[in-house]
Amino acid sequence: MINKSLQTKNSSSSSDPYRVAVIGASGYGGIQTIRLLRDHPGFQITYLAGNRSVGKNWSQLCPFIPLSEDLVIQPVDPERIAENSDFVILSLPNGYASQIVPDLCSRNLRIVDLSADYRYQSLDQWSQAYSRESAEFKRTDSDIFSKSVYGLPEWYEKEINRAQLIASPGCYPTASLLPILPFLKQGLIETTGIIIDAKSGTSGGGRNPKQNLLLSECSESIAPYGVIGHRHTSEIELIASEIAGTSIQLQFTPHLVPMVRGILSTVYGRLRDPCLTAEDSRTVLEAFYQSYPCVEILPVGVYPSTKWVRNTNKALISVQVDTRTSQIIFISVIDNLIKGQAGQAIQSLNILANYPSEMSLPLLTSYP
Amino acid sequence: MINKSLQTKNSSSSSDPYRVAVIGASGYGGIQTIRLLRDHPGFQITYLAGNRSVGKNWSQLCPFIPLSEDLVIQPVDPERIAENSDFVILSLPNGYASQIVPDLCSRNLRIVDLSADYRYQSLDQWSQAYSRESAEFKRTDSDIFSKSVYGLPEWYEKEINRAQLIASPGCYPTASLLPILPFLKQGLIETTGIIIDAKSGTSGGGRNPKQNLLLSECSESIAPYGVIGHRHTSEIELIASEIAGTSIQLQFTPHLVPMVRGILSTVYGRLRDPCLTAEDSRTVLEAFYQSYPCVEILPVGVYPSTKWVRNTNKALISVQVDTRTSQIIFISVIDNLIKGQAGQAIQSLNILANYPSEMSLPLLTSYP
Amino acid sequence: MINKSLQTKNSSSSSDPYRVAVIGASGYGGIQTIRLLRDHPGFQITYLAGNRSVGKNWSQLCPFIPLSEDLVIQPVDPERIAENSDFVILSLPNGYASQIVPDLCSRNLRIVDLSADYRYQSLDQWSQAYSRESAEFKRTDSDIFSKSVYGLPEWYEKEINRAQLIASPGCYPTASLLPILPFLKQGLIETTGIIIDAKSGTSGGGRNPKQNLLLSECSESIAPYGVIGHRHTSEIELIASEIAGTSIQLQFTPHLVPMVRGILSTVYGRLRDPCLTAEDSRTVLEAFYQSYPCVEILPVGVYPSTKWVRNTNKALISVQVDTRTSQIIFISVIDNLIKGQAGQAIQSLNILANYPSEMSLPLLTSYP
Amino acid sequence: MINKSLQTKNSSSSSDPYRVAVIGASGYGGIQTIRLLRDHPGFQITYLAGNRSVGKNWSQLCPFIPLSEDLVIQPVDPERIAENSDFVILSLPNGYASQIVPDLCSRNLRIVDLSADYRYQSLDQWSQAYSRESAEFKRTDSDIFSKSVYGLPEWYEKEINRAQLIASPGCYPTASLLPILPFLKQGLIETTGIIIDAKSGTSGGGRNPKQNLLLSECSESIAPYGVIGHRHTSEIELIASEIAGTSIQLQFTPHLVPMVRGILSTVYGRLRDPCLTAEDSRTVLEAFYQSYPCVEILPVGVYPSTKWVRNTNKALISVQVDTRTSQIIFISVIDNLIKGQAGQAIQSLNILANYPSEMSLPLLTSYP
Repeated sequence: MINKSLQTKNSSSSSDPYRVAVIGASGYGGIQTIRLLRDHPGFQITYLAGNRSVGKNWSQLCPFIPLSEDLVIQPVDPERIAENSDFVILSLPNGYASQIVPDLCSRNLRIVDLSADYRYQSLDQWSQAYSRESAEFKRTDSDIFSKSVYGLPEWYEKEINRAQLIASPGCYPTASLLPILPFLKQGLIETTGIIIDAKSGTSGGGRNPKQNLLLSECSESIAPYGVIGHRHTSEIELIASEIAGTSIQLQFTPHLVPMVRGILSTVYGRLRDPCLTAEDSRTVLEAFYQSYPCVEILPVGVYPSTKWVRNTNKALISVQVDTRTSQIIFISVIDNLIKGQAGQAIQSLNILANYPSEMSLPLLTSYP
Repeated sequence: MINKSLQTKNSSSSSDPYRVAVIGASGYGGIQTIRLLRDHPGFQITYLAGNRSVGKNWSQLCPFIPLSEDLVIQPVDPERIAENSDFVILSLPNGYASQIVPDLCSRNLRIVDLSADYRYQSLDQWSQAYSRESAEFKRTDSDIFSKSVYGLPEWYEKEINRAQLIASPGCYPTASLLPILPFLKQGLIETTGIIIDAKSGTSGGGRNPKQNLLLSECSESIAPYGVIGHRHTSEIELIASEIAGTSIQLQFTPHLVPMVRGILSTVYGRLRDPCLTAEDSRTVLEAFYQSYPCVEILPVGVYPSTKWVRNTNKALISVQVDTRTSQIIFISVIDNLIKGQAGQAIQSLNILANYPSEMSLPLLTSYP
Repeated sequence: MINKSLQTKNSSSSSDPYRVAVIGASGYGGIQTIRLLRDHPGFQITYLAGNRSVGKNWSQLCPFIPLSEDLVIQPVDPERIAENSDFVILSLPNGYASQIVPDLCSRNLRIVDLSADYRYQSLDQWSQAYSRESAEFKRTDSDIFSKSVYGLPEWYEKEINRAQLIASPGCYPTASLLPILPFLKQGLIETTGIIIDAKSGTSGGGRNPKQNLLLSECSESIAPYGVIGHRHTSEIELIASEIAGTSIQLQFTPHLVPMVRGILSTVYGRLRDPCLTAEDSRTVLEAFYQSYPCVEILPVGVYPSTKWVRNTNKALISVQVDTRTSQIIFISVIDNLIKGQAGQAIQSLNILANYPSEMSLPLLTSYP
Repeated sequence: MINKSLQTKNSSSSSDPYRVAVIGASGYGGIQTIRLLRDHPGFQITYLAGNRSVGKNWSQLCPFIPLSEDLVIQPVDPERIAENSDFVILSLPNGYASQIVPDLCSRNLRIVDLSADYRYQSLDQWSQAYSRESAEFKRTDSDIFSKSVYGLPEWYEKEINRAQLIASPGCYPTASLLPILPFLKQGLIETTGIIIDAKSGTSGGGRNPKQNLLLSECSESIAPYGVIGHRHTSEIELIASEIAGTSIQLQFTPHLVPMVRGILSTVYGRLRDPCLTAEDSRTVLEAFYQSYPCVEILPVGVYPSTKWVRNTNKALISVQVDTRTSQIIFISVIDNLIKGQAGQAIQSLNILANYPSEMSLPLLTSYP
C-alpha cells in the first residue's frame, strides 16, 4: 500500500515532465532506458549514476545517443538521487539494488527495479534462487518485499499504479508468461507437463565482456545453457502458480542464439478440453489482450520472427493446437531489451505517472 | 534382399577404389558429397550429373573445391551412370529421385538416396507426407519400397550392408532420433508426450534462392516454421514407432536459426522410472553408442554447441533429468549437411562397400 | 524549371497532409518508404502499386507493419495514380521507372525516383552505365533528363525544391560523396588517385532471392564484387566532377559484408596542402555540414560503426590525416536503406513539400 | 646462423615424430596449433603450458578437440620444456615471449614464435611499434634479433630452414604482403601511394573477453580501427621495403567484420607500366607462386570470398587492372587463424624439420 505523500505527488497537476534518475547507465538496460526516456514528453532524465563510469560524460560513453544536456555520471548516492528526481529506474546487477532500495524507499521515491531483487515474495525465496548473490550481498530488507509489485503491466496494472516499488520482470518470464497466463487463469490447460523452450539473443547476457558471448564463440552456433535449474524457472513458476491458483512446476530450457536482440519462447501445454481448436485458443488470447496495445495476437498459422518486434515494446503471440496429441503450442516473441527489460520498466513508469501504459514506447519495427 | 550379382560385385577383391556417380551436384548435398568423396581412398568420383548445370565444368561451379579430374556435368542418364559407376549417390529434390531409381535398380546399381522418396514403408505413406510432390511426380514404383533400408547406420548397419537402396535419413530425424531411440527400445520413457524442439541453420533450406533464406531476412532473427505437420514429424514417428514396438505420435517444432550449419534438437520425454538419474541415463546412451565412433555422449552437465560438430560427421549428445518433474531432456547436435546429410550417406556407402562405417569422414571440428 | 500548376499546388495553404503514391511496395525500398511515411504527419499514403503483388492486401505482404487503412496493391496505372496522389515515390527496378515517368510528368505529378534512370545528364550516359537495362527497356524519354535533379539534399536543396523529378542517389554514392565533396569543391585534395573502398550489408542487393545473398552463402564471408566498372563508379564520378569543376576518374570497390544494413565507405585522397591537419579537415567538414541535421562529423580519432546509424537517416563522418604520406582518409557510414535510399527520398519529398528536410525522419539509433 | 648441435638434431634419421611443446594453449592461436598438430604424422605434442589454465586438463579446456593423451597444462618452465621437446611453438601475448625466448635459445631449442616480439630487425624498432608492451616488459635481448627470421615461407624458406628462431608473421601482413611482394621485387608498381584496406573477422582480436568483440557489439556492424598507426603498418612496411630494396611508406586501414574467421585485403597500387594488363599481372603472380601450394592465383575476374579459404592454410589472390587510372588492385584472402597464424607457424615448423612446407596442413575448405 502506498503512502500519502506519494499519492499527493502523483496527482500533481503540473504539466512539467517528471524527473527520472537512471542508476546503472552504461549497461544495455541503462542505454535502452536512456534511449527511450530521452524522447518521452512526460519524463526528463535529471540524474545518471553508475559505478565504473563515475565522472565520465554520457557523450563519452555513448557518442551515438546524445542527450540534450550532457550529464556526468554520478556516484550512487540516495540523498542526491532524492534531491534530483521523482522516479528512479535501477539497472544494476542482481543483489546490488537491494543495497540502496531501502534508503530510496525511506525517501518516498518511487522505484522501478530491473533486477531480480524484489521479484519474489520473500527474502528466503530470493536467496534460494540467487544463492551466489545471496552469499555476496548481506540483505536485511525482508520488509521491503511487501511493498513491491511484479511489473508485468498486462497483469498487474492496478497494483503497479499504487506501488512504491516495481520489480520489473525478467526477459524470459515476460516472453513465456504472456501466452500461458490466460489459459492458466481460466483452467484451460493442465498445470503439469508445461515445457518452455526459449531462445535468446546475446544481449540478454549483458555488456560486461564474457568469453562465451564473444562473436567468435557464439556466432555460427546455438547451444542450451542452464538446463534445469535456470533462475528464471522459479520466477516463471511463481507467477504462473499465482495466476493458476495452484502450485506449478514446469520445464524451462534457455538457448543462446547468434543474434543481438530478441527472445522467442516456444511453450508446450496439454489442453484440458481436447475439442478446443486453434481458433478458439486464439480467441481466448485475443479476448484477454485486446485492450493492451503492447501485446498482439497473430492469425492462426502465422508464426512470428523475433525480427518483427526488434526495437519495439511489443509481444507477438501465435497459438496452434495439434488435435492428434491435444498439445497446445504457443509462440511468443519480444525484444529482450525493450519489452523484456527497459521498455517494460517504462511501461510501469508510465502507469506510476498515470500516463497511458504504452506512452512514447515504440510499437513498430523497422524491417529488415 | 540383395541379389546375387550385387553380392559378387561387392566382394570384389580388387584394391581399386569403387567408382561413384553423384547425381545432383550443385546443391549443398552434392557439394558436401563431392568434398568428402574426393579425399576418400576407397571411392573415386567418376560421373557427375545434374539438371541446370549440364555441360558446365565442375571447376566453374565450385572453383574452391577442385577435383583431380575436372569433370563436366552430365545429364541424368541411367545407362551412362551404369557404365561409369559401381555406386550412385542421389542428391535430388524430393520426388525426382523416384523417377530414375527403378531404372538404376534394374541395372543392379547400389544407391544411396538423400531424398525422402524411399524413407517410408509404402508409396501411400510417402504420398501422404509429400502430397505436393505426389501431385507433381507420377510414381509407379511401389515395389521398390521393399528394397530400401532406412540409412541410420547406428541402428540399421546390417540391413544397410545387404541393401540395394539406402534411404538416407533427414537431418532433423537424425538429430532427434539418435538420443531417444535407446530409451524407446528399452522402454525407459513414456511413448506419449514426447516433444522435439529443433533448431536448424539455413543451409538445411538448400541452395536454391528463396526469400526467407536471404541473409537480409533471417539474420538477427529466430522463427519457427511448419509448427505441427512438418514432414519430418512422420519420418521421426515412423522410426520411433518401429524401435519402440508401438505406435508413437509426438510433437516436432523446427526453428530457423541465423547460422549456416548445424542442428540442435532439444527433446523432452517423461521417465517411466522416476528414480532414473542423469548419470544412469548417460550410461544408457553410452552403453548403446560406445562402439559407434560417430556418436559421442557428453558428461552430465556439459551441453554441446552446434559449433562443436561443425564440418564433422559426429553427433554429440547430452542428457539431463529434472527430478522434480520426472522429465528427461536430451540435447543433440549435428552438422546438418554432414551427419544430417552427405556424411551419413557416405557412412552408408562405406557400409555397402564393407569399409569401416566412419572411414575417411571428419570427426573433429576446427574451432572457432 | 517547374511549371505553374505545380507551384500553385505546392503552395496550398491547406493543412491536410499531402497524398503520396508508393509504386513498387514489396521490395526493401518500398517497405522502408511505407514504414517512414506512415508516421509522417505531413503525408498520407493513398495508393500502393506493384507488379507481382497486385490484388494482395498490404497486411498480407507485411503483417508486422500495419497501415491505418489496409490498402490493396494496385496495378501501375498513371491515370489512377494521378487521381489519388500529389506526389509519387517510385521504388522500381532500374529501367522500369523510365516507362512510366514521362506519363506521370505529363500529369503534373512530382516524383521522387529511387532508381538510377534519371541520375545521369543524358540517355546516352545512362545507356552506357546500364547497358543491360538499356537493351531490355526501350527509352524515348531523353527530354525528361533536363527536368530531373540529383536528390542529394545537402548539395542540391534549392534545385530539389523547384524540380518536378528527383533522381534519388544510389546508396554507395551517398556514403562516398558526402565526405569528399567539400574537399573537391574547395580544391583541397587532388582530383586523381581517389580510392573508395566501400562495404555494404546484404539488403543493398534487394529482396528478390538470389543465391549469392542467401545467409548460407554470405554469412561468415566478406568478398568484393564489381571490381572496376561497378555502375556506381560513373554516378560518383559524375557528381564529383560537377562539384570539383573538372573531370574526375576514381577507383571504387564495393564489398559484401555479412550484415543486413549499413554501408561504410573508406575514402582515400591526397592532400594538396601537406600541412592540413586532421583537425583542420574536420573543421572543413563541420563548416560545410553544420546546418544539415542528417550529417554529423565525429571528433578526430572517433571512428563510426555502421551500427551507430542503423535505422536512421543520418550520415556519420570521420576524417584522419597521415602526415607521413599526406593521405587523407575519410570514414563515412549510413544506413543503406534509409539515408542511402528511402529516407533520403523522403528528405527530397519534404523539400518538395516545403517541410524541413529532416521532418519525421529518424536520426537516432537504438543500440545495440 | 644456426649452431652445430641444432644441425645434428635436425638431420636425425629417426622416423619418430618430433616432440613439440605448445606454450600458450588456451587462446585461439594455441587451440589452432594443437588442432593442426594432433593429426600431423611428423610431430607429437608432448608439452602444453599456459598461465591462467595451469593444472587443468586439456579436455576440460577444450572438450571438443580431444588429444590421444590428455595432457595437463604446465607452467612455463624452460628447463622442463627443453626436457620434453625438440621444437617449441609460442602462442603468447606480445612482450611475454621475449621473457623466455633467450632461455629457450640457450638450450638449443628451435622456436616458432607467433608473437610480434622478433618480427623487427632491432629492439628499438620493436619498442617503437609496441610502446605499451615495451613499457610493461623489460627486454635485454637485443642480441636475439639477429637469430630470428621472418617466417613467411613463400619468401624466406631457406632462411627459415637454417634459423633457430622464427618470428611468424602477423595475420594482416601475411594477407597484404603476399600479393604485392612479387610486384615490388620486380619494380612493377610505384613504391609510394600503396593503400591497403583490410577486413578481418573477430577471432583476430583473440579469445580474451573484450567488450568490442561481443557479438552484441560487433554483429550487424562494420567499423575501422587503428586508422593510421596500426602496428601492422610498420611490419608490412619493413618487409615491403626489404623486398623492394627501397624504403616504403604506405597506408593500412583495418576494419572489423561481423564474422569469426578470415581476412580480406584489398590492396591498391599504381602500375609503372600503364600497358601491363590484368592477365599480365596474373602471370607475374602465377610465375612467382606456382611452386607454392599454399598460395593460389585466381583467374582474372574471379574474386575470392574469405569463406573459400576458411579452415585452410591457403591464400587466394586475384588481381585486376583499371586501364583508365593505371591502378592495380589485388584481392587477397586467408584464414587469419591458419595461414595468418597457427598454420603458417606449422609451415615454418615443417621447414625446420625438413618436411614439405605444406605437410599435413588443410588446403581445402568445406563449403558453405
